[in-house]
Amino acid sequence: MTELNERALMSPDDFVAAVRAIGAERYHHLHPFHRLLHAGRLEKPQVQAWALNRYYYQSQIPIKDAHILARLPTGALRREWRRRIIDHDGEGETRGGIDKWIALAEGVGLDRDLVVSGEGILPGTRFAVDAYVHFVRERSLLEAIASSLTELFSPDIIGERVRGMLEHYPFVTRETLAYFDKRPGQAKADSDFALAYCVEHARRREDQEAVLDALRFKCAVLWSQLDALHYAYVEPGHVPPGAWRPGEAVR
Amino acid sequence: MTELNERALMSPDDFVAAVRAIGAERYHHLHPFHRLLHAGRLEKPQVQAWALNRYYYQSQIPIKDAHILARLPTGALRREWRRRIIDHDGEGETRGGIDKWIALAEGVGLDRDLVVSGEGILPGTRFAVDAYVHFVRERSLLEAIASSLTELFSPDIIGERVRGMLEHYPFVTRETLAYFDKRPGQAKADSDFALAYCVEHARRREDQEAVLDALRFKCAVLWSQLDALHYAYVEPGHVPPGAWRPGEAVR
Repeated sequence: MTELNERALMSPDDFVAAVRAIGAERYHHLHPFHRLLHAGRLEKPQVQAWALNRYYYQSQIPIKDAHILARLPTGALRREWRRRIIDHDGEGETRGGIDKWIALAEGVGLDRDLVVSGEGILPGTRFAVDAYVHFVRERSLLEAIASSLTELFSPDIIGERVRGMLEHYPFVTRETLAYFDKRPGQAKADSDFALAYCVEHARRREDQEAVLDALRFKCAVLWSQLDALHYAYVEPGHVPPGAWRPGEAVR
Repeated sequence: MTELNERALMSPDDFVAAVRAIGAERYHHLHPFHRLLHAGRLEKPQVQAWALNRYYYQSQIPIKDAHILARLPTGALRREWRRRIIDHDGEGETRGGIDKWIALAEGVGLDRDLVVSGEGILPGTRFAVDAYVHFVRERSLLEAIASSLTELFSPDIIGERVRGMLEHYPFVTRETLAYFDKRPGQAKADSDFALAYCVEHARRREDQEAVLDALRFKCAVLWSQLDALHYAYVEPGHVPPGAWRPGEAVR
């Protein structure tokens, strides 16, 4: 009986509620590293380590999205998804998110060449981010799209982050954080589309479960990057061999 | 001048010395989690977490080796490499390494179904191990083979581990650690072959550098798994959402 009920298709409302419940439990706004970052309890080198490592994630987002683009079957879907790549890579004179993240990293005192090289990032960062790229290539299109649903939860954390960092860190300016200015609106548009796509295309209970699992996977991709940062750079700090050490510029 | 010298092919002796120097600096015998494990400074649930997570690594080794097998061009090479898969998957009545690892995990008190399910492992474990499997599929055959060279360094750590665990943990028996009985000999044969292959096939300096980079990558795969374990399970302990918590049996 329970077994049967568990297998029944969820209503759209229940399905969306299940999606949101995963965010409430597993999104990285709950991670202790973010709590330290937003509360001003990190030193500058720790904020630098965050900016350096997070750059690798940013740099792979349009690659991830290009893999999804290559799998979308209609021009209408590809036009919709293409906007994400433009947001990150820029267009004409308009800077994209990646350039803005480089500016953020420079703004907190990192060398641009170090950041762009990707050298010195934590293996935990690289493995988590690469797992995300592999996931969208290897899983179903529905799961690939579902893995972007973490953007449903990002507008709140961005507001909290910008307020907290501006209030607490004298070395952080509004200009440094320009990356975040447009992200809440972009993230809302992107995740509204992705959620509608998942509601429409998850026609069997197992599709719905695959969507939820893809979202859990993506939450783990984000969470795991903060685990690696926290372990490496917060007291006592265990920087792994080959990774950036505070004070290092170009390697 | 220096630039030119740096580009020159290393002699076989220098090349092998460079391989060994990476092990001396980056192999996971140096990781603080291993020092705690071998010195008897972990509690039983922490040893269980190690056994549970390390099972996922063990379980993917023959898959990794099958990908390499599929890329080897001659029967002679495939016969050589096939032995690794037999060592892990067993043959006839002879248990392979994976079954012995399950016995190890049961020996320290874990539920077999939990272990085999792969549920509850740390995302950091999964991402690192999957990165290894992807690496051997996507990089050159030389790099794929080179990534196995960490086995050059494993006989020492195995001796230290078995001695330390038997001495310090009352819940660990020699039978529980049977996995390790044959590994030093197998690892020596395997890594002697892989090293000879790399010396022979790395004909340009950039091939030699690719071998060294592949070995650094693999050291990071091993090291990163211990980072994740240490962060999650050693005081204060930050178990990520969805991962095993001490005391949990089947999920």
